[in-house]
Amino acid sequence: MNNMDRLYEAAVARGPVCVGLDTAACYVPEAALTRFSGMAEAVLAYNRALVDATLDAAACYKVQIAYYEALGLAGLKAYSGTLAHIRGRGGLVIADIKRGDIADTAERYAAAHFSGDFEADFVTLNPYMGMDSLSPWLDAAEKGGKGAFVLMRTSNPGMRDFEYQELSEGGRLYDAVGRALSALAFRYYGDSGYGAFGAVVGCTEREEAAAIRAAYGKLFFLIPGYGAQGGGAAGAALLLKADGSGGVVNASRSVLTAWKKRRPGCDSIEEAAAAAREEVLEMRREIAAQCEAV
Amino acid sequence: MNNMDRLYEAAVARGPVCVGLDTAACYVPEAALTRFSGMAEAVLAYNRALVDATLDAAACYKVQIAYYEALGLAGLKAYSGTLAHIRGRGGLVIADIKRGDIADTAERYAAAHFSGDFEADFVTLNPYMGMDSLSPWLDAAEKGGKGAFVLMRTSNPGMRDFEYQELSEGGRLYDAVGRALSALAFRYYGDSGYGAFGAVVGCTEREEAAAIRAAYGKLFFLIPGYGAQGGGAAGAALLLKADGSGGVVNASRSVLTAWKKRRPGCDSIEEAAAAAREEVLEMRREIAAQCEAV
Repeated sequence: MNNMDRLYEAAVARGPVCVGLDTAACYVPEAALTRFSGMAEAVLAYNRALVDATLDAAACYKVQIAYYEALGLAGLKAYSGTLAHIRGRGGLVIADIKRGDIADTAERYAAAHFSGDFEADFVTLNPYMGMDSLSPWLDAAEKGGKGAFVLMRTSNPGMRDFEYQELSEGGRLYDAVGRALSALAFRYYGDSGYGAFGAVVGCTEREEAAAIRAAYGKLFFLIPGYGAQGGGAAGAALLLKADGSGGVVNASRSVLTAWKKRRPGCDSIEEAAAAAREEVLEMRREIAAQCEAV
Repeated sequence: MNNMDRLYEAAVARGPVCVGLDTAACYVPEAALTRFSGMAEAVLAYNRALVDATLDAAACYKVQIAYYEALGLAGLKAYSGTLAHIRGRGGLVIADIKRGDIADTAERYAAAHFSGDFEADFVTLNPYMGMDSLSPWLDAAEKGGKGAFVLMRTSNPGMRDFEYQELSEGGRLYDAVGRALSALAFRYYGDSGYGAFGAVVGCTEREEAAAIRAAYGKLFFLIPGYGAQGGGAAGAALLLKADGSGGVVNASRSVLTAWKKRRPGCDSIEEAAAAAREEVLEMRREIAAQCEAV
């Protein structure tokens, strides 16, 4: 049993949607925003409402720390409060921090994000500096019952610059990352068949998607790019297994701002969160339909 | 004129040492530690003393955010206070945050680290996700008079895993990063001949070092790995130009814990900071001697 088993089970039970809490103050209905003492307070309140509204419809949450750092110390207090609220309600949270550093530093980062004020269930990591920048996280994950997702093929156009580089030894750079993660998967291996470290594979680009899913069967995928970034259910389904398992699909802006489309006059965070719930349910249906079609 | 000119001039005037404030509470003399209300407070006080003692002997400071995140919200307050103290004393500070994310997120990160509570003069960035993950930082740097260092060939053994991969198009992965950064250098170009974005090249590995310096003349280098990581003045000198310019050499633990070697009975942060100053001066002499020898 590892932490990926918990996420696997959550996705089987509640569908593969990961709600991305990349919550900018401008995503909160303007009339509601004025009721709070500051932007960070508004963001935390909106996050709490979003979590309460989607807890039974989403597999997990992903919190992008950049949106909180941009609000300074008050923002990081809201970040801490958001993580605590999700975990307090029994939800699973991925801290989208994309860290990657030398081993001594990685140990400090792991202490920061696997315990204390910023405790999350999973983190995202960047592999550029090599496997010794990841292994302290795996040690810490094993001790603390945690997990991670390592960047493999991301959802942005710039992924072609380096991730897509063809290597002399064969395959692309992202394949070298995928192979290294697959080799690592058997340490702290889970009952559901996945290592504690999964991979980030975006659904904006369908090219090579089915091949990636087939090649890296031991890696649970965190799949960004759905919605505002241009990825859709068809692309996401290619990265899931035939039964719809094997990953979670993240949407952030399209969920956080669903009220603009679904309830344009909305003036409360509760109503905005209800619109977010509708968006999550529709996204879950769309992905399920595409998984059946694949 | 860009921000790299300021660092270039600082290194010419005061030598190329970058003091790394990767300050763990265990680096503070134990007797001094007990005088503070908490670890974060002790770390901030030690940092202030270190800065005051080395301001005329070091080119700049590098603050590794992981050591502060590990202390939670109180730690980030100490991080913010450390940056403010350095900038308040007229020093230059590199926020060692190694961020790299999609463009929308990069904009938030740039707002976080080029202004507000966490304002620094430079940041470190991770190139894995591609150039569109870096360009919002360059826009922000141009607007705010800031700069960055992008990971190229780092100082840890694991750099061989991906950074050293040979590419089908020729060269290693780190070369592809270096070429892309060189092409970018002519935007927001400085009077001293360097782009606003430099590169991180470690001095632990001498192999290929002289070739890297020769190939990427427009890139100012942030050179980690000196001291505790095993790199020395000879390796660092290979990454500087013949006149000793072109980069700053970071040492963290060897400076922060210099009191253990130089003043073993030390029981105050002031005395520990004085030992750090001696270490910085010795490091400066050693690098200068090696640059003359190259």
